[in-house]
Amino acid sequence: MQGEARPSPGPALLNASRDSSPVFRWPVRVYHEDCDDSGVVYHAGYLRFMERARTEWLRALGFTQSELAGRHGVLLVVRSLSVEFARPARYDDALAVEVALEALKGGSILLAQDVSREGATLAAARVRIACVNTASFRAARIPGVVSAAIARCGA
Amino acid sequence: MQGEARPSPGPALLNASRDSSPVFRWPVRVYHEDCDDSGVVYHAGYLRFMERARTEWLRALGFTQSELAGRHGVLLVVRSLSVEFARPARYDDALAVEVALEALKGGSILLAQDVSREGATLAAARVRIACVNTASFRAARIPGVVSAAIARCGA
Amino acid sequence: MQGEARPSPGPALLNASRDSSPVFRWPVRVYHEDCDDSGVVYHAGYLRFMERARTEWLRALGFTQSELAGRHGVLLVVRSLSVEFARPARYDDALAVEVALEALKGGSILLAQDVSREGATLAAARVRIACVNTASFRAARIPGVVSAAIARCGA
Amino acid sequence: MQGEARPSPGPALLNASRDSSPVFRWPVRVYHEDCDDSGVVYHAGYLRFMERARTEWLRALGFTQSELAGRHGVLLVVRSLSVEFARPARYDDALAVEVALEALKGGSILLAQDVSREGATLAAARVRIACVNTASFRAARIPGVVSAAIARCGA
Repeated sequence: MQGEARPSPGPALLNASRDSSPVFRWPVRVYHEDCDDSGVVYHAGYLRFMERARTEWLRALGFTQSELAGRHGVLLVVRSLSVEFARPARYDDALAVEVALEALKGGSILLAQDVSREGATLAAARVRIACVNTASFRAARIPGVVSAAIARCGA
Repeated sequence: MQGEARPSPGPALLNASRDSSPVFRWPVRVYHEDCDDSGVVYHAGYLRFMERARTEWLRALGFTQSELAGRHGVLLVVRSLSVEFARPARYDDALAVEVALEALKGGSILLAQDVSREGATLAAARVRIACVNTASFRAARIPGVVSAAIARCGA
Repeated sequence: MQGEARPSPGPALLNASRDSSPVFRWPVRVYHEDCDDSGVVYHAGYLRFMERARTEWLRALGFTQSELAGRHGVLLVVRSLSVEFARPARYDDALAVEVALEALKGGSILLAQDVSREGATLAAARVRIACVNTASFRAARIPGVVSAAIARCGA
Repeated sequence: MQGEARPSPGPALLNASRDSSPVFRWPVRVYHEDCDDSGVVYHAGYLRFMERARTEWLRALGFTQSELAGRHGVLLVVRSLSVEFARPARYDDALAVEVALEALKGGSILLAQDVSREGATLAAARVRIACVNTASFRAARIPGVVSAAIARCGA
């Protein structure tokens, strides 16, 4: 048997935009590692899913955290977040995780992040990302090329 | 060498109440598993620390989740949460995680949870816990013995 | 910006079979959640990657763990494993995780699992999977349709 | 209610040596984060428990990984491991994790690590630890003070 690996939810879901606003979607498959003994995804697992989607959103914009650290000496970190857990995700679920820009300031990015299954929201979050120096973890400006790319995508 | 296992932060920290309100504290040691490649605790890790503290707070009140499921057919789950990340925790840090009751209603418990190191807050959260049926995950009333014990401790 | 989510390593890697034996490959991207403060993937993370690949291998054979539990009352669990860690994987790496059948007996499946980056092995494992009853966790026979499908793919 | 945090299994378990050889034991409580949807501890979770015990064993010997990195420019990493999973651990279990020295060479430490509940082994592992340079991850000699301390404890 040759490897027949396919990404978790099919392309149909990935392209299914529910509104006209610019939204990035990333597919996530739920594995045993993500669940707990109540049979559903452990609540902190949704934060891991959201971080994966942010990483891929940044990559789609043309950047990786490694490059930001190497070239600009900065990291993008989570400054604050709030999450509402509406319905549980379960083992083997094919989820979609969204990244939508809400606000962009000098050192901070506010994102809305939804985790959904077949169009139904399971968890809805707002995540504030801050730019910090890699060594001191002190606030830093988002590099101009990065904020410009983010601003373009959110316009 | 005989096992000389000692809990992470010493008892001094555990007993060091910074105010007169009833607060439960649980020690957590940071291990490699909790950190990420930026050298500090991964943001979702704080949620795991907070859940450990809630579990031990419940145990100190006389209950375990296993008993709640077995006797009452209910689970306590996280309905929503918000976290502010103030300073990073690092490998080997001895942290204290607090649980303080903010509000108690029929099916919901609002807790304030602080993660600190030597008295300095690293992360501050509000966590809303809901009581749900173990099978359907639908809202359920908190069993009377549990809410009575929680109310007593928070008075 | 529309979602332009693409699976981690491209299809080229997925189809790049290094030998003629039947091997299943699954792409895994390394995120912050997978790394520790030494800057590389935490050793237990490779086990999560391998489990994802086994789940997708089973899916490619036509089965999911949920169906095995629901229809046959069994789970496939890890009975034993050994891993050699050769080189560290790092944040943002695009890895390939392999599943190759080594032996199949009544209640046990022996798999060879390699985690590689651009053809270089980072971790090499042997994993023995056992079939157990979902309730008792006692040894059970692998359902005939499953072992037949595994035997076919490994022939 | 004042914080009444107590370490997971009581001291009795910690002191319960089953043989006369020098063995280090560390208590671990199982939380929801450690379990998966089959209702028991996720197999990779045992590796996290074992790493906690190794960290505390090293601390009991007078060393931390931070100091090894800072003073000697080295890390202790897992080079290889094998684990047999005998019985599942469950939510709320009070486990004991052992560290016993099997062999010590210039750049490598072989440990036997057992995870048990009330004296019954749940998982038994052999873990080979290597000393590597923090930057290059190349093999390095274990600092003399560390190997001397390990040799003393294992004698």
